[in-house]
Amino acid sequence: MTMTSPPSLFRFAARAAALKPSAIREILKTTGAPDIISFAGGLPAPELFPVEDLSRAAQETLAEDGPAALQYGITEGYWPLRQWVCRHLAQTVGLNASPEQVLVTSGSQQGLDLVAKTLIDPGDAVLVENPAYLGALQAFQSYQARIIGVPGDDQGMRVDELAGILAGLPRPPKLLYLIPNFQNPSGTSLTAARRARIAELAAAHGVPVLEDDPYGRLRYSGTDLPALSAQPGAPSGAYLGTSSKILAPGLRVAWLVAPDREFYDRLVTAKQAVDLHTSAFTQRVVCRYFLQPGALGSHIDRLRATYARRRLAMLQALERHLPEGCEWTRPEGGLFLWVRLAPSLDAGGLLKTAAARKVAFVPGEPFWIGAPARNTLRLNFSNASEERIEEGVRRLGEAIRGSFQ
Amino acid sequence: MTMTSPPSLFRFAARAAALKPSAIREILKTTGAPDIISFAGGLPAPELFPVEDLSRAAQETLAEDGPAALQYGITEGYWPLRQWVCRHLAQTVGLNASPEQVLVTSGSQQGLDLVAKTLIDPGDAVLVENPAYLGALQAFQSYQARIIGVPGDDQGMRVDELAGILAGLPRPPKLLYLIPNFQNPSGTSLTAARRARIAELAAAHGVPVLEDDPYGRLRYSGTDLPALSAQPGAPSGAYLGTSSKILAPGLRVAWLVAPDREFYDRLVTAKQAVDLHTSAFTQRVVCRYFLQPGALGSHIDRLRATYARRRLAMLQALERHLPEGCEWTRPEGGLFLWVRLAPSLDAGGLLKTAAARKVAFVPGEPFWIGAPARNTLRLNFSNASEERIEEGVRRLGEAIRGSFQ
Repeated sequence: MTMTSPPSLFRFAARAAALKPSAIREILKTTGAPDIISFAGGLPAPELFPVEDLSRAAQETLAEDGPAALQYGITEGYWPLRQWVCRHLAQTVGLNASPEQVLVTSGSQQGLDLVAKTLIDPGDAVLVENPAYLGALQAFQSYQARIIGVPGDDQGMRVDELAGILAGLPRPPKLLYLIPNFQNPSGTSLTAARRARIAELAAAHGVPVLEDDPYGRLRYSGTDLPALSAQPGAPSGAYLGTSSKILAPGLRVAWLVAPDREFYDRLVTAKQAVDLHTSAFTQRVVCRYFLQPGALGSHIDRLRATYARRRLAMLQALERHLPEGCEWTRPEGGLFLWVRLAPSLDAGGLLKTAAARKVAFVPGEPFWIGAPARNTLRLNFSNASEERIEEGVRRLGEAIRGSFQ
Repeated sequence: MTMTSPPSLFRFAARAAALKPSAIREILKTTGAPDIISFAGGLPAPELFPVEDLSRAAQETLAEDGPAALQYGITEGYWPLRQWVCRHLAQTVGLNASPEQVLVTSGSQQGLDLVAKTLIDPGDAVLVENPAYLGALQAFQSYQARIIGVPGDDQGMRVDELAGILAGLPRPPKLLYLIPNFQNPSGTSLTAARRARIAELAAAHGVPVLEDDPYGRLRYSGTDLPALSAQPGAPSGAYLGTSSKILAPGLRVAWLVAPDREFYDRLVTAKQAVDLHTSAFTQRVVCRYFLQPGALGSHIDRLRATYARRRLAMLQALERHLPEGCEWTRPEGGLFLWVRLAPSLDAGGLLKTAAARKVAFVPGEPFWIGAPARNTLRLNFSNASEERIEEGVRRLGEAIRGSFQ
């Protein structure tokens, strides 16, 4: 017997109406054909996944720790992984956390959801970079946040704009959300001076900072900077890290650091209600891989070398093939760069011409809060070979030139 | 530098205040010592996990399909797993679904969260069995539902009570939530007649049914019945199934079937916002195990044989050791039975005496909607050997007798 469905049965929640499917995921569905050169996704290079090391980690996990890896676990996450996270953060971004402050999440997207679920009532203000990461916007929208975009430039969020917006709000926003390193979609990074100043401003106004750092380890030039959350006097909040970009997104293992005890406890309770806990098996596989001496370090070196070449190939191809009037960011790391076309052009329309020429990207429109700059677009450089990057950007240049006719 | 935390920084959402930590998870923390015989958790027997088969499935997955298993995947889930789910449901519970109606979730808890997120505005009514599954109550509470308990008896939810409540509500509730097979916590199952009648009532009142079926394959006596969602004329809604009890909960792979297209699409969009997708790796490992001819069938046979013996051991021990005035359910399957003590006794107080005698259970209080029957408690019989069940129930009987003094 099949379930039947009268049309009037479901009365959806107000938040469901506020939530739109990801524009990127829709684009990926139509541009996934193998003959299309896609700069649309945010995908790591699959040929670099350490498949054999992970296979060994999976075997060892099940052989040595099978029953625990397959049983229910605690919501907070696997203790040795939380210990590793603390050592890793101290070594890389200057953040001193204890394992009791670490919550393992099913990808950083879940970290965004849990923070939003715990803090945001309908209509609450959340400040974000403009343009902002689409997954974060979705998470905040699903709790009916009032999202306010803070303008940025090629050094990330502008401090004067942030100060002005904070001064003008009747009460502090619930959250200030940032990707300080190699931001998605713009590729920009906050300077050391801005990190310090933004931390001060957030502290002065009593605004928790949600710092999202998926790309921080993927730096190809310049110097690593301490996390925004590690600035002297930074207010408490949450820092999100993940294995997705340094290991493999298909495992869905990420971590959230929240030093405030009540906030942490409420995040744990929220996670109980949404999925009990992250897979005990994948947590142990990831942890075992991370604990293998030298494995992660040499893997990240390999990622950096490959992605740095691809970034350079894309920058050079853009110089060669894009017509006068186009500008783009020159990210020091991460997966993306951001292109600004001549003001008269619409990247949404361009995508159709480009798709006909078998090249794809994400138009900038969905990343903007308020009036979108429709002449912007995001390009990913991690997922295609240098040859395909050259050819894809050549096609993109043709498509742009075609748009003027 | 460590993040610092002024006390006033966080202003929590109203829903966060509505959400309490799971009483069970709190009890598990204090009764997890190895010298305590615990009937508190809902844990499968870890010694029965098919560790070697899963290790082989993990190796083959990475060897044959490594890049896809480690890469981002689509939100809806791995297509061959969704195909398997359809065949499995047609064969076991008489539900005819297409893979386009199946959404893979990170455990059934996530199915509960997504349905609640999509349908429930603050104050919306949700009907549940009374007593009800605690994880579902948490999911509904986290969206500030008004939860209404429908009284039951030893055949599950009472139809006359449901009809009366539906007739008395000013408008239909957003959802009717049930576990028709071997309910958690009571162990009772809906008869065939009640399934048909409840489906009719839900259809007549335009109420979507959320059917949760984690234990259905674990039947030790009696005859399998078609799902409530498979009854003629049943209204559309969602059916939840999971690998947690028939394979391993640590993998966090479950499935939701929603035949209504708009409802399904909104659930997918909600899942995008909460975790993008369930691990591509664990989905493939579980699917590969399920597709191995005979593997799941003989594993479930093994589970049934062992759990049936443990259930019998517990029933016999209860007869032997519990004093006059105690009653309990005799479930035909699942993991739990439900004990009603003499009316003067409080199971919360008893837990302290029992813990001193090194035996643990879950007091009934948190499962009740409205006035709790404090003389009730839940016992799990899947996670302890027959010897430990006999000894644990003996200690429990002593603790109960001690409570009268």
